[in-house]
Amino acid sequence: MKIKVGICGYGNLGRGVESGILQNPDIELAAVFTRRKPVESLKINSNVPVIHIDNAAEWVDKIDVMILCGGSANDLPIQCPSLAKMFNTIDSFDTHAKIPEYFKSVDLSAKANNKVSIISIGWDPGLFSIARLYAESVLPEGGTHTFWGPGVSQGHSDAVRRVDGVADAIQYTIPVDEAVLKVKTGEKAEFTTREKHTRVCYVVAKDGADLSKIENEIVEMPHYFDEYNTTVNFISQDELKRDHGALPHGGIVIRAGKTGADSNQVIEFSLKLDSNPEFTASVLIAYARAAYRLASKNDFGAKTIFDIPPILLSRNDRDEVVKNLL
Amino acid sequence: MKIKVGICGYGNLGRGVESGILQNPDIELAAVFTRRKPVESLKINSNVPVIHIDNAAEWVDKIDVMILCGGSANDLPIQCPSLAKMFNTIDSFDTHAKIPEYFKSVDLSAKANNKVSIISIGWDPGLFSIARLYAESVLPEGGTHTFWGPGVSQGHSDAVRRVDGVADAIQYTIPVDEAVLKVKTGEKAEFTTREKHTRVCYVVAKDGADLSKIENEIVEMPHYFDEYNTTVNFISQDELKRDHGALPHGGIVIRAGKTGADSNQVIEFSLKLDSNPEFTASVLIAYARAAYRLASKNDFGAKTIFDIPPILLSRNDRDEVVKNLL
Repeated sequence: MKIKVGICGYGNLGRGVESGILQNPDIELAAVFTRRKPVESLKINSNVPVIHIDNAAEWVDKIDVMILCGGSANDLPIQCPSLAKMFNTIDSFDTHAKIPEYFKSVDLSAKANNKVSIISIGWDPGLFSIARLYAESVLPEGGTHTFWGPGVSQGHSDAVRRVDGVADAIQYTIPVDEAVLKVKTGEKAEFTTREKHTRVCYVVAKDGADLSKIENEIVEMPHYFDEYNTTVNFISQDELKRDHGALPHGGIVIRAGKTGADSNQVIEFSLKLDSNPEFTASVLIAYARAAYRLASKNDFGAKTIFDIPPILLSRNDRDEVVKNLL
Repeated sequence: MKIKVGICGYGNLGRGVESGILQNPDIELAAVFTRRKPVESLKINSNVPVIHIDNAAEWVDKIDVMILCGGSANDLPIQCPSLAKMFNTIDSFDTHAKIPEYFKSVDLSAKANNKVSIISIGWDPGLFSIARLYAESVLPEGGTHTFWGPGVSQGHSDAVRRVDGVADAIQYTIPVDEAVLKVKTGEKAEFTTREKHTRVCYVVAKDGADLSKIENEIVEMPHYFDEYNTTVNFISQDELKRDHGALPHGGIVIRAGKTGADSNQVIEFSLKLDSNPEFTASVLIAYARAAYRLASKNDFGAKTIFDIPPILLSRNDRDEVVKNLL
């Protein structure tokens, strides 16, 4: 019997989950849930019902795991504690500072209703988080650095789009090669924000806009750009569409430590992703399988990626995994 | 209260565990166990008792976890099932083909005596195994490749030392750059053994030995060298000692997969180690902590690295880990 999954929210991430499920023969999509009214206005790629989120309760017996694909700012803090009363859930909540508070509120709902909720799944938070944990546990003396990119930062792209005179824009975060190399060679390293990443913007200006004013406003923008070396390139809307339509991303977690008298030991975990949302979706699906299995063992409550034994992610049985991968 | 650890076997790995424990303030060494007679003939660096392995039973109440540092060929298959009756254990059993059988025999002992035994810990089997599992679970459609080195292969070095006319030798395994690059770019790739790794030997010949005969015997040696491009360099004993005294190793696990219509997604996990035994020892220590915690929760029996939630490895408490690493 397949694991029946619901998708809640049908943006880039939700569509990524929808296509990712097709790669997992033990999982099937049961329904897509949306806030849109009327629900018929949402066209999806799969032949499953589209249900208004207010009617989710009717699906309690038909969904094993609900994959929440909403945003961390406004959707998840409301949706998850409420849906965790009815369903096992997975989400990609990524507002780092608010994770402890979010965990607590989801945990209350899940525990009281015998459900499992695995929160903050994806690659950062997510696979990068466990890469940091494994590396720090194995090499207690050393330093860990995370570099992001090259890739598109949605938050920074949005910030540029809000600048007066900007019609459209995209922003790439790029790790500084020298810094990455320094860490890789095991050299003890401390960096300023500016030394670790650069930012590159491709901007479509509105007709008659003052380009140098736009550029200044971007590079001096507090929090987003003022602590970085930022390059602003003006291009046409056609060029933006043609050359910058994808959402690539990635990054690297490096821990360089010492053991014994003076042995350098370097651990690296890196991702190079053509599609950030499709990859995040793939991670969510693997952890949906884990949530289903935890629920089958009555191991209820909120969980983080740190709590999940890797074996629960595989669709293959344990003996096969031990034989082929150990 | 600290976790009290015993070391069983005092070779390179045992000494690595001894020095690694000093980096973990929550763990202390209680005693070193050896087969040597008299035990006084073994000099260790720490100020703890050296105990003959036959007297291990006297230490049942004084050791929380026994770290087995013997070899996979002859020591562990005998020692582990026997010691797992008395102690929680960790080992680095690495004879891949025999792991299922080994697991079963250790599991019987551990379960019958309410002990935890985590087997086959290190980096391969070990961290590389979970890297493969995470990557394959997250990207169901794709290919995984493991490259080893550059580093010293003990088994191959031993094989060269057994060649007639060889006084001493060391063998390095080196990944072929082109193959690694091909996999990294996401290209679907199949390789012959020869295309993935090369082998380089540094050989000290006995006086008057026939060098070209030695070279031929090495490069044509079945299983060990005949399927590889092998280079043999003759050097002096002094050069061997001066330039090849360390035991560096490492490698890389790469999975390149596809999601959605045609997005390439590449996951890499790599290690660059100055000291292979010290690093393996550091992994054993982190999993000793996990074994102790599993035993505290009465979760007994044999385990593999796949069964262990990452949170159990950290010496920091859960809230702190969530706050700092998620």
